[in-house]
Amino acid sequence: MAGDSTLLAAVTLLSACQQIYFALHVGRARLKYKIAAPAVTGSPEFERIFRAQQNSLESFSIFIITLWMAGWYFNQVFATCLGLMYLYARHKFFWGYAEGAEKRTTGFRLSLGILALLTLLAILGVTSRFLDEYLDFHAAKKLKHPF
Amino acid sequence: MAGDSTLLAAVTLLSACQQIYFALHVGRARLKYKIAAPAVTGSPEFERIFRAQQNSLESFSIFIITLWMAGWYFNQVFATCLGLMYLYARHKFFWGYAEGAEKRTTGFRLSLGILALLTLLAILGVTSRFLDEYLDFHAAKKLKHPF
Amino acid sequence: MAGDSTLLAAVTLLSACQQIYFALHVGRARLKYKIAAPAVTGSPEFERIFRAQQNSLESFSIFIITLWMAGWYFNQVFATCLGLMYLYARHKFFWGYAEGAEKRTTGFRLSLGILALLTLLAILGVTSRFLDEYLDFHAAKKLKHPF
Repeated sequence: MAGDSTLLAAVTLLSACQQIYFALHVGRARLKYKIAAPAVTGSPEFERIFRAQQNSLESFSIFIITLWMAGWYFNQVFATCLGLMYLYARHKFFWGYAEGAEKRTTGFRLSLGILALLTLLAILGVTSRFLDEYLDFHAAKKLKHPF
Repeated sequence: MAGDSTLLAAVTLLSACQQIYFALHVGRARLKYKIAAPAVTGSPEFERIFRAQQNSLESFSIFIITLWMAGWYFNQVFATCLGLMYLYARHKFFWGYAEGAEKRTTGFRLSLGILALLTLLAILGVTSRFLDEYLDFHAAKKLKHPF
Repeated sequence: MAGDSTLLAAVTLLSACQQIYFALHVGRARLKYKIAAPAVTGSPEFERIFRAQQNSLESFSIFIITLWMAGWYFNQVFATCLGLMYLYARHKFFWGYAEGAEKRTTGFRLSLGILALLTLLAILGVTSRFLDEYLDFHAAKKLKHPF
């Protein structure tokens, strides 16, 4: 498993680093806008950065799961490319949101679209494997040789 | 790994789709109750839906982890059934909470019970494998042939 | 995979149990300080416990991911030891934060340091495997026999 998942592991690690980076940025914003823990409100700038990080983190585990499912059951290289695009979309979303609430939409929609695509590929891959294993129906072969 | 985890992968994907569905519902509630981002308070209805989604998301990574550990180290089919029951419990919890804070308890307790059971199975499975590997003690065999 | 990851699985399960324990403690604090759901503010004691749990949960998925990547691609025993230290750091952080916001720093810094180390080991491991697989460059061998 570990052997044929190196690309997925690399994207996963990059994504974890991005999350750590976002979290450190929230910590810096806490100091900059003087919001003492445990408060999470009090300054619109801080709240936007905080919500941007929270929102990215909320999608993080869903992203990682669909990435690996799409990579294992559909195609690793394709899933990796989508994963890199997702990281870019989240980058755009975070810095857009930090500037203004209305600037978050482009990055958000892009990231949501990529997540939907990864989910779709994962569903296709898992369904095909499921049919294979439990119903002895070879979807991939059927598509190549329908008769 | 990917080969003998198809059922777990299927439940995992279903669960990810449920989380995405909950998140989209929060987005819709934001528009309906006119709560402009980044605020997360201001309307009790919105707050309940938001907390229901947050609570489900908080348990999401713990659920996925115990599901796979129970499936890998104990029994895949059994873990899969519990996983499907967990999805139903979360569904009940979310819609109960959206209606009223006191209506969340049934679904919540059910989901907590299933999570506890999955954790227990995972602990049993991992402990047995651990004794096997590191102490050469075959728990499963001993239970069948104690003497 | 499941066979040679038993230690990682054990630490992962311990960590999941710790998260469940923190979450149950928030539930108890809700009753003790009379904060009715869905509110999450109103008492500084409750807010600190709530933020301590939220913060631990936020790092949870990142921790699990770097733990497994470091364990699979670098060294399982080493990653396991760091994982156990991380659990201790989170324990210290949680109870420190519950006592007072300024008492959270020791545990927090320790947990951040361990997370950074795990991430570094994972990056080293994945990079080495990546060079191996895609560029046929054997980093581990080169280090032993540079000429």
